[in-house]
Amino acid sequence: MSLTVRRRRAADTAKAAAADALLVTHLPDVRWLSGFTGSNAALVLLAPKSGAAKAVLFTDGRYTAQAKAEAAGARVVIAQKNAAVAACEWLAEAKIKRCGFDDGNTTVAALKQMRESLPAKLRRQMFQPVGALVSELRWIKDYDEIATMRRAAALGCRLFEEILGVMEPGMSEDTVAAELEYRARLQGAEAMSFPTIVASGQRSALPHGKASAAKLPKRGFVTLDFGVVLDGYCSDMTRTVHMGRATGEERAVYEAVLSAQEAGVAAVRAGATSGEVDEAARGVLRATKYKGHGLDKWFTHSTGHGVGLEIHEGPRLAAKQNQQLKPGMVVTIEPGVYMPGKFGVRIEDMVLVTPRGAEILTPSTKAWIEL
Amino acid sequence: MSLTVRRRRAADTAKAAAADALLVTHLPDVRWLSGFTGSNAALVLLAPKSGAAKAVLFTDGRYTAQAKAEAAGARVVIAQKNAAVAACEWLAEAKIKRCGFDDGNTTVAALKQMRESLPAKLRRQMFQPVGALVSELRWIKDYDEIATMRRAAALGCRLFEEILGVMEPGMSEDTVAAELEYRARLQGAEAMSFPTIVASGQRSALPHGKASAAKLPKRGFVTLDFGVVLDGYCSDMTRTVHMGRATGEERAVYEAVLSAQEAGVAAVRAGATSGEVDEAARGVLRATKYKGHGLDKWFTHSTGHGVGLEIHEGPRLAAKQNQQLKPGMVVTIEPGVYMPGKFGVRIEDMVLVTPRGAEILTPSTKAWIEL
Repeated sequence: MSLTVRRRRAADTAKAAAADALLVTHLPDVRWLSGFTGSNAALVLLAPKSGAAKAVLFTDGRYTAQAKAEAAGARVVIAQKNAAVAACEWLAEAKIKRCGFDDGNTTVAALKQMRESLPAKLRRQMFQPVGALVSELRWIKDYDEIATMRRAAALGCRLFEEILGVMEPGMSEDTVAAELEYRARLQGAEAMSFPTIVASGQRSALPHGKASAAKLPKRGFVTLDFGVVLDGYCSDMTRTVHMGRATGEERAVYEAVLSAQEAGVAAVRAGATSGEVDEAARGVLRATKYKGHGLDKWFTHSTGHGVGLEIHEGPRLAAKQNQQLKPGMVVTIEPGVYMPGKFGVRIEDMVLVTPRGAEILTPSTKAWIEL
Repeated sequence: MSLTVRRRRAADTAKAAAADALLVTHLPDVRWLSGFTGSNAALVLLAPKSGAAKAVLFTDGRYTAQAKAEAAGARVVIAQKNAAVAACEWLAEAKIKRCGFDDGNTTVAALKQMRESLPAKLRRQMFQPVGALVSELRWIKDYDEIATMRRAAALGCRLFEEILGVMEPGMSEDTVAAELEYRARLQGAEAMSFPTIVASGQRSALPHGKASAAKLPKRGFVTLDFGVVLDGYCSDMTRTVHMGRATGEERAVYEAVLSAQEAGVAAVRAGATSGEVDEAARGVLRATKYKGHGLDKWFTHSTGHGVGLEIHEGPRLAAKQNQQLKPGMVVTIEPGVYMPGKFGVRIEDMVLVTPRGAEILTPSTKAWIEL
């Protein structure tokens, strides 16, 4: 989808919400609509009756050259002041009466400042909350985005294979993360999607166990959850491997999580709801008994989330959510079981929603691995 | 300063703003007040007439073990719902009438949701905007924080020396960043403070030139701007070095930026205003003529900013700002000159504000370096 098409759709959606213009300040949204990747920006879209939506990008003097190069289809205004305030003054001059804004990404103080930058008579009516209008358009990836995300996911898989050859008992989690991130960078990753999780031994029971100084055990699980950023798009995957010989209990929990994860993936298709996918995974754990409880008792988070320019996007795949999946969405399926003080297991793929099912973008093996 | 002291000061400051309680949702603020480092949290502080402020931390099931371990002095509530909403329901049950919140870090939609989670009769009065009350307390670092930031800054300096031995013409900026970040990780950095800037040749004219696939030139500048995170605290420094022999013009611009940077550092002391420090640096560039203009024409950003748990904190050192510097603040001094299509130079130190001046925390050489 070209930027022109994206802008037209966003402006039209705003128009349907009775706004003559759309003020975009959430940076991933700005990037998606304009190509601009700087850290300070506001974008105004106007939808004329026909033809391309008009786009005006506001940023500051640090980005003069970059904005003109990246946001080729937009008019670029270098503002001396706050970009959003400059955009508001422009809206007033352009005689716009009602402008949509994302109330989920605009602070109370920013809205106050935006209002105060307008002539008094425009203040009351100008800003109409339209929610995550642009972010929701971003949930469905176009051809080029999917191609980029395939590359990012494939790099993640390659890194997983490489890091298996590096890990050994006594090595710190931090060192594992360092080796992984170094290889990621050398193979073109512009950043990691989020702080790399290397959670070993008892720490594998922490769902968000960022790499620490803890040493990999001679016997015990290691959960690796990481992603790379390529051309702005994030990958995300998790594998849990075992150092040394496992107990029967460890093995049984691993197999249950794997079954749950596969059931989650199998439930993905256009038209399924996010709650159905969550339940497909959660139900498998519920049916697996451990000390008188279903294993779902230890599955303490949701099953997955959308991924794209942001590591966490919609839809959210959680209990009772009824968001319908659509072709072109890219979501994670990542059930886990966490037993505090003992161990934890999580397995995660990034999958593309297709008309009939799911295509796994992270096909690294999920079979049991003992190192 | 102990967490108890921090909490008491925050709660007292809120009380002075006529709030019976303080709702904290900005994560660096939550960490500073409670020790909790998770990615989803809300903290409520109550100031009784005497004794320690009462602290209640709300998070979700992923963080059960971590929250109890990290936030030892707070009551921990594991919420099934949004942490801020759970906090609001708790406020209502505790019969709080007026609660301060940070309107600069709370979205319009979040405030609406917070209000709607209250009984109707409490909605209108409960939430009082108190701005960046906690963040502003954080501007002044205590003994332990300064010790941590010294370590982070010292690691940055070590990395700068190491990377000089790695850089050579033809190596990509991405590879330089990879080598730098790898060494950072192996020496204990938990993350980089921000995307590493390696801007070479003409790209050095981009103030925010994140490392790219561009190759280091045989002759030209390379700007390195990077920082590491240790125990949550960020370092930040910039050095610009030259590959091969420089032209007289390059050398002259470098010396002007260095003089401006040193003048900025020399202007730092408790009681000076942020605008005075900015002007000290900017004035040196203004007095240096280039093609009929003062060099300040090409200094397109502010002189510096506070650093701490966040890479960009207050105070902002910019033209006409009148924030007074205070002992214990840690700020950057980073003037630059950027000539689009030609080259750029930036030099940055992180300095501690002392009663009589500034202590440079990043003492790596700023003398001219040709590689």
